Amino acid sequence: MDGSAMRTMKLNKVFTLLEPGPVVLVTTHDGKQGNVMTISWTMVLDFTPRFAITTGEWNYSYRALKKTRECVIAIPTADMLDTVVGVGTCSGADTDKFAKFGLTPLPGRIVKAPLIRECAANIECRVVEIVRRHDIVVLKAVAAHQAPSRKEQRTLHAVGDGTFIVDGRRLNRRRQMAVKIPEGI
Amino acid sequence: MDGSAMRTMKLNKVFTLLEPGPVVLVTTHDGKQGNVMTISWTMVLDFTPRFAITTGEWNYSYRALKKTRECVIAIPTADMLDTVVGVGTCSGADTDKFAKFGLTPLPGRIVKAPLIRECAANIECRVVEIVRRHDIVVLKAVAAHQAPSRKEQRTLHAVGDGTFIVDGRRLNRRRQMAVKIPEGI
Repeated sequence: MDGSAMRTMKLNKVFTLLEPGPVVLVTTHDGKQGNVMTISWTMVLDFTPRFAITTGEWNYSYRALKKTRECVIAIPTADMLDTVVGVGTCSGADTDKFAKFGLTPLPGRIVKAPLIRECAANIECRVVEIVRRHDIVVLKAVAAHQAPSRKEQRTLHAVGDGTFIVDGRRLNRRRQMAVKIPEGI
Repeated sequence: MDGSAMRTMKLNKVFTLLEPGPVVLVTTHDGKQGNVMTISWTMVLDFTPRFAITTGEWNYSYRALKKTRECVIAIPTADMLDTVVGVGTCSGADTDKFAKFGLTPLPGRIVKAPLIRECAANIECRVVEIVRRHDIVVLKAVAAHQAPSRKEQRTLHAVGDGTFIVDGRRLNRRRQMAVKIPEGI
C-alpha cells in the first residue's frame, strides 16, 4: 500500500478537517462527468457532522450539486497550491479539470461524486438543505477517508487577496480544552 | 500612538480577515455588560461583506446577540492562545471575561458591543437573520478596525481536538488569482 492510500475515517472526527478553515476542493458528478471547484467559504455546523458551504449559480458545479444533492469535500495540502489556484480560476463548463490538473478520481463509498486521490482527506456529503437567500448549502457527511501516512499534511488557508497561508506550528491545549472536546476526539 | 492602535478599515477588505478561517472572539453587550465568546465556526458569505457564524442557546452570549442583533468579531493572534482557550472554556453567566482575561473593551463606532483592544482587528456586525433550524447567524459588517502596526499578526486555527495551528508562511498567487480577486483588494 503506498503512502497516499485512503483509509476510512470515523465520522465523529471529520469536523476536525474543516474546523481549521482550510481551502478545499469540492467535487460533483452530473451523471456524465466529474467536476471540481475550489471553495474557501466553509463552516462546521455540528459535530454529527454537518457543514455549510457558500456557493450558487456563479459556480458551474452548483447545478450538479443542486441536481444530485451530493458532493465530496477534498482537503488539498500545501504542495497542491497551484492546483487549488488553477481549479479555482477555470470552469467545468469548458474544462475537464481532473484531466487538466492531473487529479485522479476515485470512487466514493456512498456518493457518485469522486474522491480525489491526491488529497489528504475526502468527505462524502449529502445536501441537507440549500438556504437560497444566503447561498448557503447545508451538508451532512456520510463517509470519510484520509491518507494518514501521506507525508505532506499541512493545509492552505486562502486570504482572498490572492495570497495563501500555509499551516505553521501546532500548539497543544488538549488539557485546558478538555471540557469542550467531544468524547472520542 | 502606540503600536496596537486601531485604525478604520475599508469594508471591502474585511472578508480577508475571516476567509482564512481563524478562531475568533465574538463580543456582545446585553445592555448591562459586555461579554465575549470564542467561536471557530465562521464563514464568509459575500464580499459586501456578510458572514455566517454558528451559535445557539448553548452559548450564553447568544441571548444578547438575539436581543440586540449586534456583535463584534475580534481577531486574536497567536500570542493570545491562552486567552482564546480561557474565554472558550468559561461562561459569561458567572464570569466577567473581560476582567478575568485582561481584555480591554473599546467603544465601537456603530454597535454597542465592545471592540477588544488586544486583538489585531475588530469587525462591528449587525444580525441580518438567524436561520434557527441550522443555528446559523447571518451577519453584515457595518464598520471595521485594525491594528496594522501591531507586531504579531499571525492568527490561530482551532482544529477542534484541543490543538491549534498557527499561521505559517504566506504564499503569493495574486497574478494567477487576478480574475477572482474583487476590485481594490
